[in-house]
Amino acid sequence: MGNLCECLGNFFGRKNTNVRVSLPAVCFIWQIAMIVLFGIFIRYDEESDVKKWLELKKSANITSNIENDFYFRYPSFQDVHVMIFVGFGFLMTFLKRYSFSGVGFNFLIAAFGLQWALLMQGWFHSLDPVTGTISIGVESMINADFCCAGSLIAMGALLGKVSPVQLMIVTLFGVTLFAVEEYIILDLLHCRDAGGSMVIHAFGGYYGLAISWVLYRPKLHQSKSLNGSVYHSDMFAMIGTLFLWMFWPSFNSAITDHGDGQPRAAINTYLALAASVLTAVAISSMSQKKGKLDMVHIQNATLAGGVAMGTAAEFMITPYGSLIVGFCCGIISTFGYLFVTPFLEKTLKLQDTCGIHNLHAVPGMLGGFVGAIVAAFANEDVYGKEGLKRVFDFEGDFANRTPGTQGGFQAAGTCVAIAFGLVGGGVVGLILRFPIWGDPADDNCFDDDVYWEVPEEEEEIIPPVLEYNNHMIHKHQDISESNFSVEQS
Amino acid sequence: MGNLCECLGNFFGRKNTNVRVSLPAVCFIWQIAMIVLFGIFIRYDEESDVKKWLELKKSANITSNIENDFYFRYPSFQDVHVMIFVGFGFLMTFLKRYSFSGVGFNFLIAAFGLQWALLMQGWFHSLDPVTGTISIGVESMINADFCCAGSLIAMGALLGKVSPVQLMIVTLFGVTLFAVEEYIILDLLHCRDAGGSMVIHAFGGYYGLAISWVLYRPKLHQSKSLNGSVYHSDMFAMIGTLFLWMFWPSFNSAITDHGDGQPRAAINTYLALAASVLTAVAISSMSQKKGKLDMVHIQNATLAGGVAMGTAAEFMITPYGSLIVGFCCGIISTFGYLFVTPFLEKTLKLQDTCGIHNLHAVPGMLGGFVGAIVAAFANEDVYGKEGLKRVFDFEGDFANRTPGTQGGFQAAGTCVAIAFGLVGGGVVGLILRFPIWGDPADDNCFDDDVYWEVPEEEEEIIPPVLEYNNHMIHKHQDISESNFSVEQS
Amino acid sequence: MGNLCECLGNFFGRKNTNVRVSLPAVCFIWQIAMIVLFGIFIRYDEESDVKKWLELKKSANITSNIENDFYFRYPSFQDVHVMIFVGFGFLMTFLKRYSFSGVGFNFLIAAFGLQWALLMQGWFHSLDPVTGTISIGVESMINADFCCAGSLIAMGALLGKVSPVQLMIVTLFGVTLFAVEEYIILDLLHCRDAGGSMVIHAFGGYYGLAISWVLYRPKLHQSKSLNGSVYHSDMFAMIGTLFLWMFWPSFNSAITDHGDGQPRAAINTYLALAASVLTAVAISSMSQKKGKLDMVHIQNATLAGGVAMGTAAEFMITPYGSLIVGFCCGIISTFGYLFVTPFLEKTLKLQDTCGIHNLHAVPGMLGGFVGAIVAAFANEDVYGKEGLKRVFDFEGDFANRTPGTQGGFQAAGTCVAIAFGLVGGGVVGLILRFPIWGDPADDNCFDDDVYWEVPEEEEEIIPPVLEYNNHMIHKHQDISESNFSVEQS
Repeated sequence: MGNLCECLGNFFGRKNTNVRVSLPAVCFIWQIAMIVLFGIFIRYDEESDVKKWLELKKSANITSNIENDFYFRYPSFQDVHVMIFVGFGFLMTFLKRYSFSGVGFNFLIAAFGLQWALLMQGWFHSLDPVTGTISIGVESMINADFCCAGSLIAMGALLGKVSPVQLMIVTLFGVTLFAVEEYIILDLLHCRDAGGSMVIHAFGGYYGLAISWVLYRPKLHQSKSLNGSVYHSDMFAMIGTLFLWMFWPSFNSAITDHGDGQPRAAINTYLALAASVLTAVAISSMSQKKGKLDMVHIQNATLAGGVAMGTAAEFMITPYGSLIVGFCCGIISTFGYLFVTPFLEKTLKLQDTCGIHNLHAVPGMLGGFVGAIVAAFANEDVYGKEGLKRVFDFEGDFANRTPGTQGGFQAAGTCVAIAFGLVGGGVVGLILRFPIWGDPADDNCFDDDVYWEVPEEEEEIIPPVLEYNNHMIHKHQDISESNFSVEQS
Repeated sequence: MGNLCECLGNFFGRKNTNVRVSLPAVCFIWQIAMIVLFGIFIRYDEESDVKKWLELKKSANITSNIENDFYFRYPSFQDVHVMIFVGFGFLMTFLKRYSFSGVGFNFLIAAFGLQWALLMQGWFHSLDPVTGTISIGVESMINADFCCAGSLIAMGALLGKVSPVQLMIVTLFGVTLFAVEEYIILDLLHCRDAGGSMVIHAFGGYYGLAISWVLYRPKLHQSKSLNGSVYHSDMFAMIGTLFLWMFWPSFNSAITDHGDGQPRAAINTYLALAASVLTAVAISSMSQKKGKLDMVHIQNATLAGGVAMGTAAEFMITPYGSLIVGFCCGIISTFGYLFVTPFLEKTLKLQDTCGIHNLHAVPGMLGGFVGAIVAAFANEDVYGKEGLKRVFDFEGDFANRTPGTQGGFQAAGTCVAIAFGLVGGGVVGLILRFPIWGDPADDNCFDDDVYWEVPEEEEEIIPPVLEYNNHMIHKHQDISESNFSVEQS
Repeated sequence: MGNLCECLGNFFGRKNTNVRVSLPAVCFIWQIAMIVLFGIFIRYDEESDVKKWLELKKSANITSNIENDFYFRYPSFQDVHVMIFVGFGFLMTFLKRYSFSGVGFNFLIAAFGLQWALLMQGWFHSLDPVTGTISIGVESMINADFCCAGSLIAMGALLGKVSPVQLMIVTLFGVTLFAVEEYIILDLLHCRDAGGSMVIHAFGGYYGLAISWVLYRPKLHQSKSLNGSVYHSDMFAMIGTLFLWMFWPSFNSAITDHGDGQPRAAINTYLALAASVLTAVAISSMSQKKGKLDMVHIQNATLAGGVAMGTAAEFMITPYGSLIVGFCCGIISTFGYLFVTPFLEKTLKLQDTCGIHNLHAVPGMLGGFVGAIVAAFANEDVYGKEGLKRVFDFEGDFANRTPGTQGGFQAAGTCVAIAFGLVGGGVVGLILRFPIWGDPADDNCFDDDVYWEVPEEEEEIIPPVLEYNNHMIHKHQDISESNFSVEQS
């Protein structure tokens, strides 16, 4: 069977999806480059280098090892790590025959992306001007994981339509762009964005959408039969959904202030996510004639509250404010899956496999604006004088900034993130159109068999007589039962 | 096929399972109510509010942010969170065609329940008499998750036989009853129950059983073909089992005393669970003619040790004491699955889909009594004078209580929990019998297709010739092979 | 069907796989022994006993409960716990019909092993000479989990070919041998091995290989049809892979020094693992004519970096050093799966179901030698005088040891671990050859049906006519399609 398909494929001019040279080449070259660059630039920071830590303890009069940042952030780091690899990975296993690729390519590009992110983020944020080196610690690992998330989100729009080599390129540029826009937004504009509504979700979402738009496949319907789920693939995707949902409070609180900042961000996110679940279920049920729920909504729209709280979670948004954000975003995201994604595909020629428009792009953008509004209304009554300084980091060059101004900059930051996503994605999309990356043909998308050794299923071991019958059936699709009984007798 | 079924269903007077109005209505109304009530009552506590935290640090002379309760409890909170959503959720995916509902409805009702729990528990335990508000922090989130657990346990007895709207009602009342019985047991009787053998498991178990008893379906055997597992659904359920099993030490230690209390509770639970595994395997193997293991026992009875240690884990029960508790409960729980559940169904007309009687109700009750015994035998030799005060909180009004008295109150608390479960469940069961909640017909239980858009399986696309053959086979079930060869030749 | 198979089995002298007496007997006797021995020996340590903790706080002038070791190590313990039960367990579910056994037997033997490990490790490392008791705390639980890992690795080589009773014996001896070799390596040779490259992976790997070599089955090809994966079993295995991969930084840092030691070990492991992914993917893709990836490599070789960093992770190996280790081990491990495992099976008569030779034995050995080299090159420039003492624990009897000497001892320790594995495994293999343990026949391996009640699959309900056809097909395997059409016409 396999051989037959192959022959036919070649006969009809199927694209060459062989990545036997390009994929190993990219992996090896980039990994070797990482080793060289790490050798030149990357060092342990003072909390993970034994000599520097002992010196720091003396100089800063630290009495206990528990003051090491590790104990503030490592549990959150591990939660974020699970979100990146199991959360994003399994969320993309919902397709019936693309689960290997969903989880496997996610694994590959995240493992590459985090190394590149340590370098890029280091160069922009923590390059020591004296030694020319970058110091990494637990917070760097969290930020590297965050940085990968942008590219993994973009992968959601492209799922099933690109080769692993293309995904590596998406990640190389995605991480690079991320580091630049993050530098502009967090350092130059001095925005706050602990959970990355702007820098991760809005950027990643529009980045992926722009790439997908450039790579539009008019004949994608030829792979339609594989662009759907089966019962157990939906269950695997639920593993991804739940780990994302459960650990999102850690995502939004992982790099917030020690002390009050982390619990506040966790509580706000926890509440927003809970509200999203109820409204996603409500809209999903309303949209069907018989009130049945759609797994696509449950797997995705329930997470919208977490995305939308990425900026405001560390602010004093109040518990009921968090619920309102989750409430609205659950509705907006589900509506997106119902109406916007089909609309975008029809009118804008935008094919978005996982619907990242509804889960990341729009809720991320909204999250940016929610953050702007909450920041603009911040005041000393609620935060206290010292608290205002602390939460918004009104220090140094920014000591005189008012909450109102901060709100304006937060909104501007959101626009920067979107612009970077759209323009960057457009350019990367053009690069990916070179016909050398081994992407699948239109009738060959959403199929693991292109890039993976797929085990034969027991069910597929069809005895020859059935194959014969199958063969006959395909020839006479509309033959009635009686005909068959004749043919057999 | 689907249409045909539907027609036949309507013809035979199938129940109306359309929840297109009721489910969204319940979700929206309740979520809006939550927003309003949160707006009125819920505030950040002093460890998650920036102004209050900075004030607290000054007034209480806290030198380091690591003293924030977040760093004591957040890792445990995340483990508990995983147990609630992945643990309970996936444990209920074992049915062959009810996995979407198992994990999805669990998700829905837990997301609602935790909001309602924050309010109910707040009103009963931490309403500020001056401001009339409730302060929430990390410990509140853990308690809210605990509170949901009671209703999720009840869902186990009802699995496959009720509509999502009914489950929402089970949760609304379940959380309410939980808060009341918890107030009576922990505050009025001054019991200790950190892991909730009494307040969570005994209450939740009997609550679910009472509801199920009232909702007895004499013709449930009509859905018998779907009331079982397939190979991969059992594997999904093992995900739930293992995450519950692994994180149970965190469950029982999440809200115990800072310092020695948390590690002690974790160690005791760890040991009891390990012993449960061995005895559950032993009894499971003994019960089969050929010594084969039954997945139902491995998925459930291995957890009995954790349930039974919910009260005593924080006490000085000693490591071998924990092993004995696990040893016994593994046996009792497995026997329950083998003999008690069938007996209850036959004689008491009690249909308990997940066997919560054996996993929660009985081990929870036993755990309550184990706690009572261990408390009664506590003494200054083992605990020290200060330690006895610390572990049992013999302070304020209860400063003069002796361990013996405490033991008596612990036993009384267990009875209160069971009584609340049985009476409350009976009443809620009656409410659920109104014929307006969209529950499935007796021949339509355990089927996702009633409330979910279920993807068509590839395997179901049977080629016509097979359907024909199938058709013939069903007509002549006992035809010999030779006949077939004749028919075909 | 089942009955027919059984009859034929008995007719052809199939082995007796009934474990109805032996399995429960082993479980009960061993669990009771554990209870007795725990009663005699095991006590809470001073950080989990309320009396001792309050005394310790006073005597050691500890001001805050956060100084309790629980808060340094418990999050890491939970990550390790997940690796042991979900990581190892699900990694072994890749076989199409042996998933129940993979995850279930892993569960059973780990739950037994950790109890026995607490005793064995306690006797060797922390027996109080005055009271004759062992004090356990959070670190003991981590070590007990580690100790189980050795036996679980060995299980990987034996997967599908042994009975649960045999696995219990493998674990009983495995834990015992582990405690002895660990005592020799860590205490007598004073090696450092925080993540257990030597004591866990090299030992466990060679232990399993030696057992498997003794238990060689010349006719194992009779079970060939079941010795492979199906699509969804590979997805379940990916759950195991990812949880191992994500939490390996916690594994290697769980028992390293408070303060700088834990973050350094985590960072090094994180980087080595990331590099392993890229090289494993590269070699996997290169090895196939069309560049397709093989799930076996992705599931296993991506983890090699974590294994190989088990010793050196806590040293100042530098970030790029970690990348190099991961780079090399990803390649070596994938080559192992491609060439060494088949070679070993053909020439050495060594059947290694999970390829632990490539994932644990060789990377563990390499990790031991990497540790030796890094230790030998340690110097005061990098570590500082105090730091050198701190990292290598040059205190007491070992105060005068130099890094060079330490390197030599580290290398010696690796050899001790391998020797213990090979000799111990050989002896245990001989014990397992007694024909009383209920192991399956050669044509009955890799089949859950031997030890589990397996639910009937819907797909298995094959209509009789197909069975007839199947029957005919097996008789005429090489008949051409035309023949069939004749037979049918």
